[in-house]
Amino acid sequence: MEKSIKVFAPATVANVTCGFDVLGFAVDNPGDEVELKLKSTTGITISAITGDEGKLTKDPELNTVGVSIIRLLAKLGSKQGLDIKLHKKMPLGSGLGSSAASAVAGVFAANQLLGCPLKQEELLPFAMEGERIACGSAHADNVAPSLLGGFVIVRSYTPLDVVKIPTPKDLFATIIHPHIEVRTKDARSILRKDLSLHDAIKQWGNVAGLVAGIITSDYALIGRSMDDVVAEPYRSMLIPGYYDVKQAALDAGALGGGISGSGPSVFALSKDEKTAKKAGVNMAKVFNELGIGNEVYVSRINNAGPQIIG
Amino acid sequence: MEKSIKVFAPATVANVTCGFDVLGFAVDNPGDEVELKLKSTTGITISAITGDEGKLTKDPELNTVGVSIIRLLAKLGSKQGLDIKLHKKMPLGSGLGSSAASAVAGVFAANQLLGCPLKQEELLPFAMEGERIACGSAHADNVAPSLLGGFVIVRSYTPLDVVKIPTPKDLFATIIHPHIEVRTKDARSILRKDLSLHDAIKQWGNVAGLVAGIITSDYALIGRSMDDVVAEPYRSMLIPGYYDVKQAALDAGALGGGISGSGPSVFALSKDEKTAKKAGVNMAKVFNELGIGNEVYVSRINNAGPQIIG
Repeated sequence: MEKSIKVFAPATVANVTCGFDVLGFAVDNPGDEVELKLKSTTGITISAITGDEGKLTKDPELNTVGVSIIRLLAKLGSKQGLDIKLHKKMPLGSGLGSSAASAVAGVFAANQLLGCPLKQEELLPFAMEGERIACGSAHADNVAPSLLGGFVIVRSYTPLDVVKIPTPKDLFATIIHPHIEVRTKDARSILRKDLSLHDAIKQWGNVAGLVAGIITSDYALIGRSMDDVVAEPYRSMLIPGYYDVKQAALDAGALGGGISGSGPSVFALSKDEKTAKKAGVNMAKVFNELGIGNEVYVSRINNAGPQIIG
Repeated sequence: MEKSIKVFAPATVANVTCGFDVLGFAVDNPGDEVELKLKSTTGITISAITGDEGKLTKDPELNTVGVSIIRLLAKLGSKQGLDIKLHKKMPLGSGLGSSAASAVAGVFAANQLLGCPLKQEELLPFAMEGERIACGSAHADNVAPSLLGGFVIVRSYTPLDVVKIPTPKDLFATIIHPHIEVRTKDARSILRKDLSLHDAIKQWGNVAGLVAGIITSDYALIGRSMDDVVAEPYRSMLIPGYYDVKQAALDAGALGGGISGSGPSVFALSKDEKTAKKAGVNMAKVFNELGIGNEVYVSRINNAGPQIIG
């Protein structure tokens, strides 16, 4: 018995300015890779993790990928043994849904190897369990777009209701990851726990506009709607030069920009690849001048979710 | 010189559950009518108002229609004299955008008589000025859908940004107007001025879902998204039997329901006319049992805005 598969799952940008906790999208680059091999013995093992600088555990009960797959197999009542190799192809703690991508690649690969007993969207709760291990809470705004591709609305958590919406085909994302650390805990605690009705109305007016703009490919409306009064005013304090970086993207012609997830990565959306690349160059210049190392990723919105690559 | 026109403008449902202050839609029935006649003398006059039970002023500087038209003519630099006849075909203070419909009918009629110097969407600020006279503040969530038809997002007030979104063609509205008075001032003051981030996220998750559902004609998603944690919990206290009325609509098969504008009218959305009519019968039964007189309106979503009827 010898059967294996290699799967790529995309990084994701959660929150998407006004869409705090309810919107996310997937990108073609970066992403994580999981190799999964059927074992002739029972049990889940992790034989290798690369690209993590030794930060992740190989204990399957404590590892995002391990937990996701263990939960999936338990649900299916399967005793199948599997060995996991995880290749981190993106920075950890970057605000790009790194653990979500790993979990999604894992459950997608396992489902494939087992002959697809579940539909793709049915894998969501198991990948979310992996997220819970990594983040302490089972968020869906990274996992769902990584699993489904495109732009995803997390309409509700109780009950879980995730909706993939049509995505403009020429929309490009620029992501810059500055080499600074923003702890998710700090990014959470810096937020206000209440907001004025006035600010809330402003936010959901923009959410309405952004969703409409995305579905109808109205790029100007997407740009006008990319405004955030909830997280950006506070989380920007944790990212040196944030507003200059955002402005640099806008100066290049980007539609809008914001903090990716809880940061420190910053993203911008543009209506063609040339603008997205120019935005990346401009954004990097700001961090470079501040002496902050960084990587830039430019890619189309990923509309496919996880893909078999070997 | 003798030229006249008669225009109908539709009633509107503002707020639309989760879309507090940012969403509204127009209906085919009810609506208001304005007759406008070119005069050979200068000045704006109101020679007749019907259907208002004597409640509205014929002073053009204090009347919604008069003010809207005066502001429009001032903008155009026109000294043209006009006489207005206003026919109220819906109850005042009902939460159906009565003053907005009158103002829209007025500015649309005036623009037509003057040879359409402005595009239809450019009439919005003048109708909003009429609203300011009626309500004390220049809201757009009734005026905009009455003027543009269909579902409209008021994304922002500063600057004003109003977006008409594609509307499902089989969506029907049921509206019931109970004969009780809810003062707009009370409906406003009963609201909380702050909300928890948790509740706010729930609200804009539903806004995202509702907008996506409307644009993609996903009726089930429309229904799941019709939930309001901001206004309904408080304003429902001002409408006896509110939750029973809403439940009666759902029992008939309606997708969802809510308070129209600031009430007291209650509305429901259904995916066909038969269900919408049944919802109306069910809703009326609840108010009837409480001894509260009422009218029921059932109509398709109005996608046209104001129309010339004579």
